Amino acid sequence: MRAYEVIHQKRDGRAVPPEAIAALIADYTEGRVPDYQMAAFCMAVFFRGLSGAELDALTAAMLHSGDVLDLSDIAGVKVDKHSTGGVGDKVSIALAPLAAACGVKVPMVSGRGLGHTGGTLDKLEAIPGFQVSLPVERFREILASTGACLIGQTERIAPADRKLYALRDLTATVESIPLIAASIMSKKLAEGIDALVLDVKVGSGAFMKRTEDARRLAETLTRIGRGMGKKVTALLTDMDQPLGRAVGNALEVKEAVDLLRDEGPGDLREVTVELAAEMLVLGGVAAGVEEARRRVVAAIGDGRGFLKLCEIVEAQGGDPDALADPSLLPQAALVRDVPSLERGLVQAVDAEAIGLAAMALGAGRSRIEDRVDPGAGVLVHKKVGDAVEPGELLATLHVGHTPMEPANAVEARVRSAYQIGSAPVPVERMVRERIGGGVAP
Amino acid sequence: MRAYEVIHQKRDGRAVPPEAIAALIADYTEGRVPDYQMAAFCMAVFFRGLSGAELDALTAAMLHSGDVLDLSDIAGVKVDKHSTGGVGDKVSIALAPLAAACGVKVPMVSGRGLGHTGGTLDKLEAIPGFQVSLPVERFREILASTGACLIGQTERIAPADRKLYALRDLTATVESIPLIAASIMSKKLAEGIDALVLDVKVGSGAFMKRTEDARRLAETLTRIGRGMGKKVTALLTDMDQPLGRAVGNALEVKEAVDLLRDEGPGDLREVTVELAAEMLVLGGVAAGVEEARRRVVAAIGDGRGFLKLCEIVEAQGGDPDALADPSLLPQAALVRDVPSLERGLVQAVDAEAIGLAAMALGAGRSRIEDRVDPGAGVLVHKKVGDAVEPGELLATLHVGHTPMEPANAVEARVRSAYQIGSAPVPVERMVRERIGGGVAP
Repeated sequence: MRAYEVIHQKRDGRAVPPEAIAALIADYTEGRVPDYQMAAFCMAVFFRGLSGAELDALTAAMLHSGDVLDLSDIAGVKVDKHSTGGVGDKVSIALAPLAAACGVKVPMVSGRGLGHTGGTLDKLEAIPGFQVSLPVERFREILASTGACLIGQTERIAPADRKLYALRDLTATVESIPLIAASIMSKKLAEGIDALVLDVKVGSGAFMKRTEDARRLAETLTRIGRGMGKKVTALLTDMDQPLGRAVGNALEVKEAVDLLRDEGPGDLREVTVELAAEMLVLGGVAAGVEEARRRVVAAIGDGRGFLKLCEIVEAQGGDPDALADPSLLPQAALVRDVPSLERGLVQAVDAEAIGLAAMALGAGRSRIEDRVDPGAGVLVHKKVGDAVEPGELLATLHVGHTPMEPANAVEARVRSAYQIGSAPVPVERMVRERIGGGVAP
Repeated sequence: MRAYEVIHQKRDGRAVPPEAIAALIADYTEGRVPDYQMAAFCMAVFFRGLSGAELDALTAAMLHSGDVLDLSDIAGVKVDKHSTGGVGDKVSIALAPLAAACGVKVPMVSGRGLGHTGGTLDKLEAIPGFQVSLPVERFREILASTGACLIGQTERIAPADRKLYALRDLTATVESIPLIAASIMSKKLAEGIDALVLDVKVGSGAFMKRTEDARRLAETLTRIGRGMGKKVTALLTDMDQPLGRAVGNALEVKEAVDLLRDEGPGDLREVTVELAAEMLVLGGVAAGVEEARRRVVAAIGDGRGFLKLCEIVEAQGGDPDALADPSLLPQAALVRDVPSLERGLVQAVDAEAIGLAAMALGAGRSRIEDRVDPGAGVLVHKKVGDAVEPGELLATLHVGHTPMEPANAVEARVRSAYQIGSAPVPVERMVRERIGGGVAP
């Protein structure tokens, strides 16, 4: 079946044979199918979706477009976590050492930030000396010896996804659940993992604004993973306001360290403990979620998580002293307070607006080729449900060395992210739903 | 608004400002918007359609991407006819001289055949010496002196349409009523016409298989034309079986001549007379359809239509003797009869199958760069409702000099295009519906 026919079948809602999808992706990766045909196919998928068989074929074709790691010679169950992206999401920095400290092997492959969402690689690079690009052999050694290694995606992992994602980004075809799912799973399954915990963010600061979309994505991701013989569990977690208080790379490293020293904010702690507990269950080192949770909390309380992070940082060329002494982390050029002008209860803190404010201060990228300023960001002092008096600080701006916008403009952005009113605000749990029990059916 | 945003808005069913559509088409024509973005836009339009304002903007932008003829210095109302394409559709060859003989100016711009449908240019070129490519000045002279001129589209007419059509053809985005309508009207409105009669074919051999789709296309086309200040009327005509008996270029020229000599088949005559009558009404040379029909029939009966065709052919470099003596037209390499094996009444003659059979004999193109054999084609002796005995001829194959398929295979195609049964078959009128009264509301 030629590319034209695949597009035509999909456009009309008729089934496309799995081998035709495999050929389409192989031909596209090799340049035999032009971008314009793939763009038409992606838009047809946006409207028509993909059947389970089509989606499995697409994911497998993208996965096998490049190298697939084999970590079977490293003892233990290999478990990674993937987040769909949010504001203030520094979970991985604490999660990987906690799971490793509890006996799970964590081969973690992360991405960079774009737009209002941050990326774990940018955060790790705020630690002086930390290397996110490592040869595969070094990655294996660190994983085997410390139990975790945190790196970026290599050029040779799922090249079809890289090419396809760049095209989708220019053709308004990013927002398709099957295309998102194939993109995520093709990369994750190429890492040689046995199991995966998914953190599907939902809320105003997340890619998925509505719970039903997030649930559908979570179900799609877990279904694909299990079809490939992996254990997969997904948690739907809140992203209506920033996670924790820190948004910005060095600020977030410090907050992750705070968490590992038992001093982190409650929402961040809840999400991290729940995700880590799922990793322990999938990794086979705890019999159930209850036991897993207790073990993770213990690894926070006795400092084993923090020591494991120091060990990983040192193995990856970073300076562990910067974890113990945050003054050794990159600093902002200027710090500026944002006091409240009102009295009341915080009704909402728009996560996307705070993410864009941090980006404007230098912490993020508007284009993929931009450089981030590791010291820049926003500290959010007041969160949803907090009482605030006039003059009390809502937030603090950590202004980068070459911000995209003047601090005045960013202050206005941050202020308008806050809704202050008089209504009592119910406190909701961070984990909204749990999808799947991990084990293949 | 950038191309990305236009795609995004259309994808989500939100209104796109007319100026953004104009910019998109201008930028695409100039190469500033890449094919892959336009392909995504076309697929989004396939699913979402276009509003009236969006479609008007698209048509105007495509129209103004190239030259727009100004024929206002030529006396009389300029009226063209456009057909959406069918099998055996030689109407233009008789229609243009009939309308011109009755006092309408007919600046007719036609296309070539592709797939199972023929093209008027290919048919005209079966007349020895006939030139379909003429300088604009010569086109004007012939139009002014004879009342009609039949040429092909120049490179400078609606280049945006040419580029866009080639892309749609490769991305399964041809079958979109607004995109079809914009393509047709941008070319027709560039011809400097005052009025247009549309022959929207409907049936198994037509692009529009269903009456409701044909009606929607007709309504869309007439609405666009009137919005541009032109008089437009559309007829929905039958294309369930081939029109007339001849399918193939020289064979169709001969049949058009037969019609002008009052010897043509009834269905072809009905369609031609009805379309010509509409042209006379729009051209202001008849007060109503009844009067117009009488004048057209008179121009057939007294030979003025035939003499006008001879005059036009001579003006365009062709040999008028070949009209009077069909043995001067190109001939097939071989003629082969297809006798019936059955007894009964013809229930259906699949027009698309007959069109593909004629193509296989050399009369058509499977790719745009193929050459046609002017002598090749199929003569259909039995049509729907006809009684047939075993051994009676269903059709005759006129095999070209280098056919695409052996005559045996084509014979099987033609035979299987016929459904012969015992049920009485009702005779239906060729004109199924008339859309619009011609005058702008």
